[in-house]
Amino acid sequence: MNHNEVPIEQELAPLFDPKSVVVIGASNNWSKWGFSTFASVLNGFPGRVYAVNNSESEVLGYKTYQRVSDIPADEPVDLAIFVIPAPAVPGVMEDCVRKGVRAAVVISAGFAETGAEGKKLQDRVLAIARQGNIRFTGPNCMGFWSASSNLRGFMFPLPVQDGPLAFVSQGGNVGGAVVQMAFRRGMGLHRYVSCGCTADIQVEDYIEYFGRDPKVQVIMAYIEGLADGTRFIEKVRRVSAHKPVIALKPGRTQAGAKAIASHSGALAGSSDLYDSAFKKAGVIRVDTPQALLDVAMGFITQPLPKGNRVAIITPGGSYGVISADTCASLGLDVIDLPEETIREFDRVFPPRWSRGNPVDPAGDRNFIAYVLSPELLLKLPQVEAMIFMGFDSLGNFGSVYSDLNRKLAGVFNDFFKKIAALIPEDEAGGAELENQWIRSFVGEVVHAFFSLFGTSDPSDVDAFLEQITDFITGEKNRLVFSAKFRKVIQVYRDGNYENIGDLFAQLFNPLVEATVLNWIKTYGKPVISTTFMGSAPPVTELGYYAYPFAEQAILVLAKMLEYKNYLAREHQGS
Amino acid sequence: MNHNEVPIEQELAPLFDPKSVVVIGASNNWSKWGFSTFASVLNGFPGRVYAVNNSESEVLGYKTYQRVSDIPADEPVDLAIFVIPAPAVPGVMEDCVRKGVRAAVVISAGFAETGAEGKKLQDRVLAIARQGNIRFTGPNCMGFWSASSNLRGFMFPLPVQDGPLAFVSQGGNVGGAVVQMAFRRGMGLHRYVSCGCTADIQVEDYIEYFGRDPKVQVIMAYIEGLADGTRFIEKVRRVSAHKPVIALKPGRTQAGAKAIASHSGALAGSSDLYDSAFKKAGVIRVDTPQALLDVAMGFITQPLPKGNRVAIITPGGSYGVISADTCASLGLDVIDLPEETIREFDRVFPPRWSRGNPVDPAGDRNFIAYVLSPELLLKLPQVEAMIFMGFDSLGNFGSVYSDLNRKLAGVFNDFFKKIAALIPEDEAGGAELENQWIRSFVGEVVHAFFSLFGTSDPSDVDAFLEQITDFITGEKNRLVFSAKFRKVIQVYRDGNYENIGDLFAQLFNPLVEATVLNWIKTYGKPVISTTFMGSAPPVTELGYYAYPFAEQAILVLAKMLEYKNYLAREHQGS
Repeated sequence: MNHNEVPIEQELAPLFDPKSVVVIGASNNWSKWGFSTFASVLNGFPGRVYAVNNSESEVLGYKTYQRVSDIPADEPVDLAIFVIPAPAVPGVMEDCVRKGVRAAVVISAGFAETGAEGKKLQDRVLAIARQGNIRFTGPNCMGFWSASSNLRGFMFPLPVQDGPLAFVSQGGNVGGAVVQMAFRRGMGLHRYVSCGCTADIQVEDYIEYFGRDPKVQVIMAYIEGLADGTRFIEKVRRVSAHKPVIALKPGRTQAGAKAIASHSGALAGSSDLYDSAFKKAGVIRVDTPQALLDVAMGFITQPLPKGNRVAIITPGGSYGVISADTCASLGLDVIDLPEETIREFDRVFPPRWSRGNPVDPAGDRNFIAYVLSPELLLKLPQVEAMIFMGFDSLGNFGSVYSDLNRKLAGVFNDFFKKIAALIPEDEAGGAELENQWIRSFVGEVVHAFFSLFGTSDPSDVDAFLEQITDFITGEKNRLVFSAKFRKVIQVYRDGNYENIGDLFAQLFNPLVEATVLNWIKTYGKPVISTTFMGSAPPVTELGYYAYPFAEQAILVLAKMLEYKNYLAREHQGS
Repeated sequence: MNHNEVPIEQELAPLFDPKSVVVIGASNNWSKWGFSTFASVLNGFPGRVYAVNNSESEVLGYKTYQRVSDIPADEPVDLAIFVIPAPAVPGVMEDCVRKGVRAAVVISAGFAETGAEGKKLQDRVLAIARQGNIRFTGPNCMGFWSASSNLRGFMFPLPVQDGPLAFVSQGGNVGGAVVQMAFRRGMGLHRYVSCGCTADIQVEDYIEYFGRDPKVQVIMAYIEGLADGTRFIEKVRRVSAHKPVIALKPGRTQAGAKAIASHSGALAGSSDLYDSAFKKAGVIRVDTPQALLDVAMGFITQPLPKGNRVAIITPGGSYGVISADTCASLGLDVIDLPEETIREFDRVFPPRWSRGNPVDPAGDRNFIAYVLSPELLLKLPQVEAMIFMGFDSLGNFGSVYSDLNRKLAGVFNDFFKKIAALIPEDEAGGAELENQWIRSFVGEVVHAFFSLFGTSDPSDVDAFLEQITDFITGEKNRLVFSAKFRKVIQVYRDGNYENIGDLFAQLFNPLVEATVLNWIKTYGKPVISTTFMGSAPPVTELGYYAYPFAEQAILVLAKMLEYKNYLAREHQGS
């Protein structure tokens, strides 16, 4: 099964970067997968596309061919996607060999997953493909996505965009669910493969391939069963040495193992066996589709923690309680604060503050103290990560207090008039705002916010302001933030808002983002945010993401630490 | 602490249904809680509202009084909300007694949660209130909501609407998070109380009060610590005998228990002790804010399961695997199917179907079989609950295949023209659509869907149609569904859509809803849906809700069974 003479990136190039694609079974009939698959390929792929169908002469405006080998000889076909009944696959695969096709995706089901007969059919397809030098995905899969070729080879519509993740899934539905979740969170995938029965290309081959792709930063896998555990460990540990690999592996229960057998035909194997294989391979195991994506996004948006000692800062005691419980149950140490730090907090918070970790100002209205104080924790060498809870309720101010909002509309309007005047209407002068404008703009917004939501010593506000404006006007960030501010102001100018109070609140989000990203940059420690409210805005361009629940954020931290510890052990061993 | 001579509903009436409210500390100063609290009360409360402030003469247009007792003698005040510094509370409480105030909400912090001195202050307030016959919520709380009086006594804006839940929370932030989650899910609360340090009214008092309110169907509680476990058990078991009570109780770890002590000052007690108290009281314990709401919504939307034997039906094997694992790990039995049932499925699904539980047609395009087949499971006496996964990807069809969608726009337009013609433009003829129209409309939609997404024997489509149209045209449901259909058609008529393919998909949701609700009604068993995709539309007017993840849906089932078993044990014992 090893084709070791050819590097994997070359081996799989015709699959992920074909110049031309044929869909075998493409159809005009809405009620066939051949319709939605062909439509999916047409949706964006810039290369040549062919339709093979032996009963329709034209599909969605494309001339069809009876067989692959009927395509003109001077028009080579790199990739074939099969959406035809299983029994027809071997014959057509032979035809693909004749045509010189180099890779295939066999969506068709009815192979090893159905039992001994299906396995025989699958072995025939495999033998033909091997002989003809065709590497293939599947059978019994839902297709794949390759960002570098803008190629959606899906049997079913899936929204997806380019990004730093790659994902191989032995389950098309769980895979599709994670892909859709990622899309909704604004998170992109560079590659996604629903690999089905993995007759030819194995899970570890995809992982090896993703491992060598510099565009891929983190690898996700949904694994029901592996054909060759030793090969998996060997290949994957080479990847995990420099890139995190996270696996969702079900089958911890008998009912689950039985379901695996009837789904993919894989022997689920003992769950403990997989635990130990993953441990050797440096694979981080998770138990839910949500955790798979959560942890992957953690690796994208956060630095690795150095150790398990965490500080929690929360605007409310009960958030702190739940977070402390979750940390402790996942092996994270909610450290005792040094006396000196407690004294420092005593100076900024009212006497009723929690005087310990979790740090909770207990309803203090001095929000500027709240956003300045985390540095008292981050500067401590013994704080290796921080859980930070922001102000996600502020966004409700306008719409919830609708009566009040009408009364305040004048005040908000005056404020917007003032800050809108700071931004020139057209971008003719260059896409970049002058730093000076951003500084004045952010200054006005921060002062307005802290007069509305919290009081403080003006020198504290200025200290906060300096910090975030330096970050916001940084070379890489300036364009991003100026676009955010422009956008809100444009909505104001167009009058295209329902509630000016909510619009006002929208100005705050970039400031929270800048604050947290600045901490991460300055201290090189994870600062994981949570909204605690079951929903969260998409990840930002600069990589700020607040998890909907503390449980999720803290699991991410624990899993990142697991990877960090793996790397440390490996390093020690070598 | 017992005022047993007066029934609790009478005792707490001035709190939840006051005729007049005074906010002590109401302020024009945006940076004070007295501003947002007063604004919150003004937002909807129809009774008289007073502002007390000893330095501002007018707040948000309301004349202020220096003291509560300055309010004219012929204007009685039922409820006082305190948003002033803790040390001032005892004196003002005395003044409230003089004025004849009957209930209070002490938002002010700085009492028992801060230590011995604060506890003393709290005891003084309690003594004054007791003497003066004032029952009060707090101190150190975030306020409350009473739907019957449209009264938002919150220190912070929270979106909330009326509904069948009631909620008492010893944590303002966790409470607020759950309230916001409920709102986003379209779920209403009849009462919500952030009860803080519970100096006077105890958690069990609120639960008793909710228990007697016929508008409340399910009770939620966030509990950090109880003052009197025996009293809690005694009062709550009387409630849980007829109404589910679900509690989120943190503090399973030492770090959590420590955080509780510094937050609410409560002795967390051993977690096992709480487990045993809850068991006696019939309280269902959960571990996360999400689970608290999930389980509560399960009790609202599903009948109680009779036992632990479940069937799973899934459009994809990997969903089935994850679901089977989750069921088994929570003590639910993924039953073996009888031979006869397997043979029945053999007749409707292709040979590659899973031939077992989870039932997975393995990519069969005959969706009509998929929606008809669950009854083969539900009719079995040994199936006591079903996990059902729907078609939540269909909604993406239009927007994902944008190129294709342009090509299909004509087809969709013709279809919409046809079905729009079935509905008269104005509702002058009565809000109800004639049943005949609904029948034709649903018929057209179902036939269009099954020609697009699946093929089948026409007689199957007709059988399905009959089933759901009977449900849709049922006395109670007719208006609800006709409004749904009218709404989509109105969007079509107004041209107010981006993508006609997505609009087409929107017609499908009411059909899935009708299908599932009809099963529940017919078989009296829980049929819990999951989108499996991390997000879900809000609960419908008729109570259809698909959980975003299978893990959530299955936990709900397990917890409902726990309650069912409690009731059975109690019944046996009595």
